[in-house]
Amino acid sequence: MAEALNGLKRTCMCGEVFEDKVGSKVTVMGWVQRRRDLGGLIFVDLRDRTGIVQVVFGDEINKEAFEKAHSIRSEYVLAVTGEVVLRESPNLNMPTGKVEIKVEALKILSESETPPIYIKENLDASEAIRLKYRYLDLRRPDLQRNLMLRHKAAKVVRDFFDENGFLEIETPYLTKSTPEGARDYLVPSRNFPGKFYALPQSPQIFKQLLMISGYDRYFQIVRCFRDEDLRANRQPEFTQIDIEMSFVDVDDVISINEKFIQRLFKEVKGIDVEIPFIRMPYKEAMERYGSDKPDIRFGMELKDLTDIVKNSEFKVFKDTVASGGHVRAINAEGCADFGRKEIDRLTDFVKTYGAKGLAWIALKDGEIKSQIAKFLKEEELNAIIEKTEAKDGDLILIVADKPKVVFASLGALRLELARKLGLIGPDNKEYKFLWVTEFPLLEYDEEEGRYVAVHHPFTSPMDEDIELLETEPGKVRAKAYDIVLNGEEIGGGSIRIHDTKLQERMFKALGFTMEDAWERFGFLLEAFKFGPPPHGGIAYGFDRLIMFLAGTENIKDVIAFPKNQNAACPLSNAPNVVDKKQLDELGIQIIENEK
Amino acid sequence: MAEALNGLKRTCMCGEVFEDKVGSKVTVMGWVQRRRDLGGLIFVDLRDRTGIVQVVFGDEINKEAFEKAHSIRSEYVLAVTGEVVLRESPNLNMPTGKVEIKVEALKILSESETPPIYIKENLDASEAIRLKYRYLDLRRPDLQRNLMLRHKAAKVVRDFFDENGFLEIETPYLTKSTPEGARDYLVPSRNFPGKFYALPQSPQIFKQLLMISGYDRYFQIVRCFRDEDLRANRQPEFTQIDIEMSFVDVDDVISINEKFIQRLFKEVKGIDVEIPFIRMPYKEAMERYGSDKPDIRFGMELKDLTDIVKNSEFKVFKDTVASGGHVRAINAEGCADFGRKEIDRLTDFVKTYGAKGLAWIALKDGEIKSQIAKFLKEEELNAIIEKTEAKDGDLILIVADKPKVVFASLGALRLELARKLGLIGPDNKEYKFLWVTEFPLLEYDEEEGRYVAVHHPFTSPMDEDIELLETEPGKVRAKAYDIVLNGEEIGGGSIRIHDTKLQERMFKALGFTMEDAWERFGFLLEAFKFGPPPHGGIAYGFDRLIMFLAGTENIKDVIAFPKNQNAACPLSNAPNVVDKKQLDELGIQIIENEK
Repeated sequence: MAEALNGLKRTCMCGEVFEDKVGSKVTVMGWVQRRRDLGGLIFVDLRDRTGIVQVVFGDEINKEAFEKAHSIRSEYVLAVTGEVVLRESPNLNMPTGKVEIKVEALKILSESETPPIYIKENLDASEAIRLKYRYLDLRRPDLQRNLMLRHKAAKVVRDFFDENGFLEIETPYLTKSTPEGARDYLVPSRNFPGKFYALPQSPQIFKQLLMISGYDRYFQIVRCFRDEDLRANRQPEFTQIDIEMSFVDVDDVISINEKFIQRLFKEVKGIDVEIPFIRMPYKEAMERYGSDKPDIRFGMELKDLTDIVKNSEFKVFKDTVASGGHVRAINAEGCADFGRKEIDRLTDFVKTYGAKGLAWIALKDGEIKSQIAKFLKEEELNAIIEKTEAKDGDLILIVADKPKVVFASLGALRLELARKLGLIGPDNKEYKFLWVTEFPLLEYDEEEGRYVAVHHPFTSPMDEDIELLETEPGKVRAKAYDIVLNGEEIGGGSIRIHDTKLQERMFKALGFTMEDAWERFGFLLEAFKFGPPPHGGIAYGFDRLIMFLAGTENIKDVIAFPKNQNAACPLSNAPNVVDKKQLDELGIQIIENEK
Repeated sequence: MAEALNGLKRTCMCGEVFEDKVGSKVTVMGWVQRRRDLGGLIFVDLRDRTGIVQVVFGDEINKEAFEKAHSIRSEYVLAVTGEVVLRESPNLNMPTGKVEIKVEALKILSESETPPIYIKENLDASEAIRLKYRYLDLRRPDLQRNLMLRHKAAKVVRDFFDENGFLEIETPYLTKSTPEGARDYLVPSRNFPGKFYALPQSPQIFKQLLMISGYDRYFQIVRCFRDEDLRANRQPEFTQIDIEMSFVDVDDVISINEKFIQRLFKEVKGIDVEIPFIRMPYKEAMERYGSDKPDIRFGMELKDLTDIVKNSEFKVFKDTVASGGHVRAINAEGCADFGRKEIDRLTDFVKTYGAKGLAWIALKDGEIKSQIAKFLKEEELNAIIEKTEAKDGDLILIVADKPKVVFASLGALRLELARKLGLIGPDNKEYKFLWVTEFPLLEYDEEEGRYVAVHHPFTSPMDEDIELLETEPGKVRAKAYDIVLNGEEIGGGSIRIHDTKLQERMFKALGFTMEDAWERFGFLLEAFKFGPPPHGGIAYGFDRLIMFLAGTENIKDVIAFPKNQNAACPLSNAPNVVDKKQLDELGIQIIENEK
């Protein structure tokens, strides 16, 4: 096997050999998808990232090439030269299926052992083997499409923000560990043994510093790191589109980001997204959908029955309301037929969200069936039916509990039913965006015994709520916004506090002394002394956005070299043991397990 | 001070207020560069990233704004609204110097303490204080220009490679430590206590895997990490433009990269760079310039005197040649006047490169002055003068030593003289590119007692030299190329080996057993079994490229948040101590110093 191409030049890609090339001579290079011997002819499907073309070898086309072609196996790398001709029996399932290449010259550029996994779309081999042989898995046309789409999406991001005066500025990866937030990945320092850098969970502080430095409009497609236990669709390193703007308020950030999303979906998917998006305050989102990231592709909204049942003789309802709880319901249209087994399953489902039970009222053939009907007055029942807009054939599902539990369980139940009823699912190609706004600034953390920031401690309260910061901190709303697509948060951000005095009040509300605050965020607070402009921004989960655009529900389908659920890489075997000498230089040692 | 903008909108940037806006009302926002009180008027220079505009407050323009303006200090953040008028006395040093804004409404968005450093171009405050207050340093217009230029250059990179079918694909930052090369930054793993990730020194292996996966053309602007002692213009994290292509040979890589460089310099600097660039084999570069990264903006080439003096009675020359050394010279034109002191300085200079001395011959007023003339025959002297093309007024400088020392010392001396004579320097705006090609594949490492790879172990030998791999490994040339600009290597790469058998011969030449090789590069070697295409690539030091484009000699001028020479960040105080609990989770502990 010769090492070099010896001046051989590719003239086009496999997926580009169409009828317009009939009669001309081409050279294509690629991988053997399959080989078929048919009498005196050998047919090979040759694949590159653009697609597949059929090439044909024959004794009468070129004897030398034909004889060499007998040694060809799957995944060999070939260069073939020949004339493009129309096929006798076109294959209309292939974009290039009307033509084939009659091979006059063959060069086997590289051989291949039999690959341990098939190179085909939607392969169902085990994830472990696919990650180990990721370079083969990445040959799959579906993964290649995803990564090409990811490239294109990143290009659109950069084109759009560049055109709108944003500067992409690189922030450091070797930064300082901050005690707030998720667990940091640490990097030991050789110059300062015993000290550590941290990999950034986000460039939040640096982008705020860039605003203080007058860069005005910043963005970055940037890697972020969190050393957390990995749930599905989480990766230890993930990519963020990070954005920050100066001299803006909420409307400015929202407006430019709507234009961005519109552009992204148009250029990448050819889809027209209508703007402006709906904006829904957090409170409304919770009350109508039981979620701060509502899926608004379908209705089945939550209805508040609290007032209707507060004096009910049904003790569960009455007691719940008396102790400050809520009674809310959703109407599962057309589900009156659900059997006892199904209802038991739904009851178990809401219990996983902390609900103590699930009450139900089925309207079937003009009758009301319910385990709780006997406890309710007729006017109560009627009021419930009216409130939930239930009609014959519907099933009303009711949870009575602490507000948090009611929202969580009914919000989840709503989605569960929608999936079951086929209202949402893989075939649903609708894209429904909305902004959820006016998030609470603070929430009380029982464990810590203090208020904590819902977003982060630099998030600005809404102007009209500032005065509540000391008196009713739980009621203060933030200038924070999430962008939600089909029930998933794809991005979120806020206007930041730029007034030192307000920042001090915020820290006080969080129960920090100013020493605490300086210890944690000193250099940002110092920077605030020197003329910070009003500013705010947003960050998108880029991987998640690509999952939507690519139509996949697995984050590993949109990352070239992902880690497994243990944050390990079966391909490279990272993490791995290192020489003791390396550790000595860093002033650290491994704690030996005593057993 | 109010928190919000209260609906106030900026209508244009400070640097955009030109004569065409005279008569219209504008709102600008920015930082106070300076304030001057002149009688009943207050003049403020307001600055944003686009430039400065003068705004004027007066009792008769707007009383309220005028009164508020008294409290304004440097670096306050203002929003001002007013009419654009022509200035009575234009300032032609300022792009907006023909106009000013008569302020009808002033909002002080933010106050500032007196900043510890001045916000002005080419500030000469100490680096330590500038890094500590980096957010203020970054307000300097020269740094802002550099970062805007960097943004633009990155955009051009991405536009160019996207248009040419390259895909930007993100590779992991949490990878495997490799024993070869520079020192890795390590990241302890929580899931596998005692094991470590490494931050990548480059995505070399991943980009080769992407070729094996069929992505065909890859690029990435990517952060790389090296835990080395920092020399000037080195940073622990730096940015690389990383490129790889399949089905290519040297010419293909060079050709597309010349087009890239041409586009980059045209779009960013408006400079027409002529292509193709000169290509110079390594051997020629060393012999003519004493350097594998020659600065070809000026001549003063090395001349080989070895043959001329090999039988000389001057013992130093004769013995050097007899023991395999060289005698080479450069002609410092017009330097015959150098005094003894200057020549002593140059002698000391070459000694730092290992030379034992510096011989000289000055041609002055028709006479030959030299400390060695008495040892040389007249025909030898004449031959030297002829060979070096020296004429009256010139100074011939000669080094006799081992070839390595001769090249290193004369190559450096050539540059030193060029700087002294003003042939190169900050005012020289010439850009001279060339490719240095045909690098040695291997060089003998005395310390290790074996050949080591000059580039990396995957670099392909030149086809015609493959047969020398076992017999004369030191003579094998590589399909490797560096791109050199004005005497600096800005990028380099190679065609890679894609033939497993050749790769095995290469490892053998490096003195690795196949077990060693598998231990080090196992997953790449495994991948090579499954049809690797011919491929090659290049990587540019992006920071260095930006230094050229920005015209700065300090890498910290082109990075937003650089580290100091101890790899520390005086701004954030990274690296820092972390909680013992964090280390416990990672299974590591700090080695206590016993003293």
